[in-house]
Amino acid sequence: MPTIRVPIVERVLNANDQLAQKNRDLLKRWPIFSINLMASPGAGKTSLILQTIAHLSIHLKIGVIEGDTARVTIDADKVRQAGIPAVQVHTAGGCHLDAALIADALPQLPLESLQLLIIENVGNLVCPASFKLGTDADILIASVPEGDDKPFKYPAIYRGLQALILNKTDLLPYVPFAMDNFRKGVEMLNPGLAFFPLSCSTGEGMDQWMEWLTDHALNKEDVGANNHSLLP
Amino acid sequence: MPTIRVPIVERVLNANDQLAQKNRDLLKRWPIFSINLMASPGAGKTSLILQTIAHLSIHLKIGVIEGDTARVTIDADKVRQAGIPAVQVHTAGGCHLDAALIADALPQLPLESLQLLIIENVGNLVCPASFKLGTDADILIASVPEGDDKPFKYPAIYRGLQALILNKTDLLPYVPFAMDNFRKGVEMLNPGLAFFPLSCSTGEGMDQWMEWLTDHALNKEDVGANNHSLLP
Repeated sequence: MPTIRVPIVERVLNANDQLAQKNRDLLKRWPIFSINLMASPGAGKTSLILQTIAHLSIHLKIGVIEGDTARVTIDADKVRQAGIPAVQVHTAGGCHLDAALIADALPQLPLESLQLLIIENVGNLVCPASFKLGTDADILIASVPEGDDKPFKYPAIYRGLQALILNKTDLLPYVPFAMDNFRKGVEMLNPGLAFFPLSCSTGEGMDQWMEWLTDHALNKEDVGANNHSLLP
Repeated sequence: MPTIRVPIVERVLNANDQLAQKNRDLLKRWPIFSINLMASPGAGKTSLILQTIAHLSIHLKIGVIEGDTARVTIDADKVRQAGIPAVQVHTAGGCHLDAALIADALPQLPLESLQLLIIENVGNLVCPASFKLGTDADILIASVPEGDDKPFKYPAIYRGLQALILNKTDLLPYVPFAMDNFRKGVEMLNPGLAFFPLSCSTGEGMDQWMEWLTDHALNKEDVGANNHSLLP
């Protein structure tokens, strides 16, 4: 079966990269700093977005795109309740967002007035790594209860990141998690990667993340995304 | 893009279902009771397998197939160290096991002497739901830190289950988790589903899971898998 499927996958990925480049060009016009938040289900993507909005929406004009496999609006509703424009994208069972879904969602946001666009991908550590969306930064939220071996088991997603968050540090006293082993895996795959251990529950470590995000949104600094060029 | 991709996906799924039926027929010959363990990354699949082996390997002959996206043998090594035959399957970046990968792995196990086959799928709540492997039971391990909204956000995987485990109940005092909401979501999608809240760390709730598994492995009881027929 792999011999049949690989060429199809390559065609889909090439088409996706071309659309991702269009999204990137569109977002550069204003410019809007954009991030693609990826994670396992339940690692805290929506919690981080809500905390980020609560801290930064007085300084920055923020917009959100929420990806889900099911026809639900749980996350987008939470964001809208915080007074932030949000679009819910349904993948109809698909396990990742792709550039075409983002291209459809972008015109539904007030792009002309945004400085920061946060995209919440589907909870999945595999396929989102292959489908670039055209954002400035691909960011992963790992979480302490998932365990310290995840960089070794899902290396592809760690390789493509511009920043890494480790959420739920408040649970470190209650679960086995060898920080040294986790950091070793990350450094092997993506040396010098920006790293933010934090807890959305207690607020510990949030300041460093907010500072990094604000700096990039206000200055639109290069975060190294060009090292991972979308088109050959 | 969806209009192009759907027919391809349907062809792949039909081919997969035919291979899954062959796997099922092969496993029925002895017979071997087989389970497909699915979960988010880090929910505790390998921990549950190791605990299950520790408790049941004196009563049952167990074999394990470990699925991973990366070329690692972390999980299979742990199982083999426990004295249990294990095959590591690499999906080469793919986000789920499929029936073809299992068909290749089965002859590498001493099937003639096994009573229970445990397959650990890739950590993912989306795609594994679509690719039946030919096992008697599809089982999901949810975990407390993932949150109580997961049935609502990943409904497809909950609909196809024959049993549901909720791991890491020892973390209930430390994270927000509304058990009522979780159960409501599960009952809506899969009424009467066998449910095992437990903790692989403390051992709480493990007895009920072991009893269910032993009963089915020794009696090869129908777990309702025929209600989810593989072929139309």
